[in-house]
Amino acid sequence: MWRDLAPIGRNTTTNGYRRYAWTEADTDCRAWFKAQTETRGLTYDVDRNGNQWAWLGDPTAGDAVVTGSHLDSVPDGGAFDGPLGVVSSFAALDELRARGAHPAKPLAIVNFGDEEGARFGLACVGSRLTSGQLSVAQAHELRDADGVSLPRAMERAGYDPDVLGPDPERLARIGAFVELHIEQGRALADTDDPVGVASAIWPHGRWRFDFHGEANHAGTTRIEDRRDPMLTYANTVLAARKKAKLAGALATFGKVSVEPNGVNAIASLVRGWLDSRAADEETLASVVGEIERAAVERGQRDGVDVRVTRESFTPVVEFAHGLRDRLSGLLGGVPVLPTGAGHDAGILSASVPTAMLFVRNPTGVSHSPAETAGEDDCLAGVAALAEVLEGLACH
Amino acid sequence: MWRDLAPIGRNTTTNGYRRYAWTEADTDCRAWFKAQTETRGLTYDVDRNGNQWAWLGDPTAGDAVVTGSHLDSVPDGGAFDGPLGVVSSFAALDELRARGAHPAKPLAIVNFGDEEGARFGLACVGSRLTSGQLSVAQAHELRDADGVSLPRAMERAGYDPDVLGPDPERLARIGAFVELHIEQGRALADTDDPVGVASAIWPHGRWRFDFHGEANHAGTTRIEDRRDPMLTYANTVLAARKKAKLAGALATFGKVSVEPNGVNAIASLVRGWLDSRAADEETLASVVGEIERAAVERGQRDGVDVRVTRESFTPVVEFAHGLRDRLSGLLGGVPVLPTGAGHDAGILSASVPTAMLFVRNPTGVSHSPAETAGEDDCLAGVAALAEVLEGLACH
Repeated sequence: MWRDLAPIGRNTTTNGYRRYAWTEADTDCRAWFKAQTETRGLTYDVDRNGNQWAWLGDPTAGDAVVTGSHLDSVPDGGAFDGPLGVVSSFAALDELRARGAHPAKPLAIVNFGDEEGARFGLACVGSRLTSGQLSVAQAHELRDADGVSLPRAMERAGYDPDVLGPDPERLARIGAFVELHIEQGRALADTDDPVGVASAIWPHGRWRFDFHGEANHAGTTRIEDRRDPMLTYANTVLAARKKAKLAGALATFGKVSVEPNGVNAIASLVRGWLDSRAADEETLASVVGEIERAAVERGQRDGVDVRVTRESFTPVVEFAHGLRDRLSGLLGGVPVLPTGAGHDAGILSASVPTAMLFVRNPTGVSHSPAETAGEDDCLAGVAALAEVLEGLACH
Repeated sequence: MWRDLAPIGRNTTTNGYRRYAWTEADTDCRAWFKAQTETRGLTYDVDRNGNQWAWLGDPTAGDAVVTGSHLDSVPDGGAFDGPLGVVSSFAALDELRARGAHPAKPLAIVNFGDEEGARFGLACVGSRLTSGQLSVAQAHELRDADGVSLPRAMERAGYDPDVLGPDPERLARIGAFVELHIEQGRALADTDDPVGVASAIWPHGRWRFDFHGEANHAGTTRIEDRRDPMLTYANTVLAARKKAKLAGALATFGKVSVEPNGVNAIASLVRGWLDSRAADEETLASVVGEIERAAVERGQRDGVDVRVTRESFTPVVEFAHGLRDRLSGLLGGVPVLPTGAGHDAGILSASVPTAMLFVRNPTGVSHSPAETAGEDDCLAGVAALAEVLEGLACH
């Protein structure tokens, strides 16, 4: 399975993956998913929001046990974030069949569309639409960097965007959803465990900081006459690190856009996007508030106007305690750990009992071509997932 | 003249000009220049490097008095930087003719191509090529953001790139070059003079700072595990301002590019371009050296590798003292002032006696739509240029 999937959407210069939603690379990944479904004689099904489903048993019977993840990537992402969960799902199903297990409930594997939000700026679009956490009107407003709307992009990829919308009936037929994912940190590497169970997802959000100054000639404008937004931005980047560190939170500026972005022109506008996360919502609000205050204060010194827009926010997700404890029990008491990363499982947890399994990431590197997991750990992940699916569906 | 030129290449959102070399807007500006030439019955001539010339008298007679400037712009530039010099040249010629002045020497007006370097990253391409300060091989290496080479861009605009190269014969026929330009600072506003004469151009250059870190997930990577180049960049931006201020120099980061530039990804690479200038080369070298040291030191703390590449450097230009003093005399002792901005006049000064006139800029704003000059001051500039041309060519 890995071998067929590996070359799709891989940039040969960076070795990173560029599998953005509804692009050619994404279409190729979807074809791979469909082929895996057909090879195994599973029932193939695409829901109204473009998420792909592979069913063993009757999709309409209810109380289904569903596993899966996503196949799209961040810009120049790694091979494991998303695909490991989908590949492991098929492998776990193969393992169950090899054992001769007889599921008493329907089993399904899902590939959620546009989890990373790399193209349209919003993560988990497929699961948000299905669970009603993203309205159809909001989805119609989503546009990529070239101005292509989400419905138009879906249409170009051969999907019908007119049927977009919430799908409560589908969700009502799911008894449990379990997503396996590569760990995006080094907690399991530190405790020396190949597999763990998720406890919660930190609340997180994206804030756009617009720093408005005044364009001017870099070679002639006296320092005292400048209103240079790059200075305010730079100071805010350093303040974000400092405030986050003090609070035990995370705060990152990873995306910037500058106007006019000329070497000999003082910028008129610097836009920086802040990604921030913390263990609880109160801490997160306090960290972001402090960063905003630091930006405004420095802006006053620089003659720069600062405006902050919250572009997205995801509250804390506590995974269903019963399911979480059952998984931990089935797997012999593996570690239970929180994560700072958002997932489709976090979105679904508002609608169905949901859990996550993490596979050890020796370097902790994520969203990068250097992201990796050992083969033994991947196999341990498959074994754990098979154990969980058998425990939930066969007994 | 202004009325015809004003709408060309103007972005209706920003109100800034986007007249980049060899684009449609540039072609329209060139057509305007040619039309001005024809209206006045001047001899039109395009040199091998695409610079446009309008001659009154015999172009081959020698000891010509040449004036002019450029029509291209920085991204979202103002209306005056460049065009004021070209428009004033035609207006000064009209004034000389109205006075019935009889030039004893050939007079020419020039529009130098690609002065701002907005498209190919190198300023003064037209005058550099003609004076031999840019080799044909180097010109062939220049590429715009879309990968289009300079020769290809010229070809698309209808020029023959095969004839690019130095033009010493043309330069040998010039006795003096005078460029009129809007002041890019507030020295004349402070002394309350409409017009001044340039003494020198500060040495200046562009340095590319590459900050190499490690891409990673912004939501899961512990602060102590990060190698975030955005932090090193931010610290360097602030260090540049500090070092420049202490030395009485200028240092600006106005252009940035980030990889992968995703909201939830720690950057793997941040590239920042430093524009720095000072009154003398020793001070400039010391300021840039200190900024580089600050970047490397912070990089060591952040686990970020810093590489600095000097992309261009222009030594100090002292304008010909004789010509400068003659202009100042002809204009009744107007202020003589240095500038931090590069100009075609600075390039030509290595080959022919060269001088510059500055027209008051009440706000000092430059390279921005807010750049402006009063009508009375523009007319004073035309009168001063007519005085200078008459003094140099008619007596």
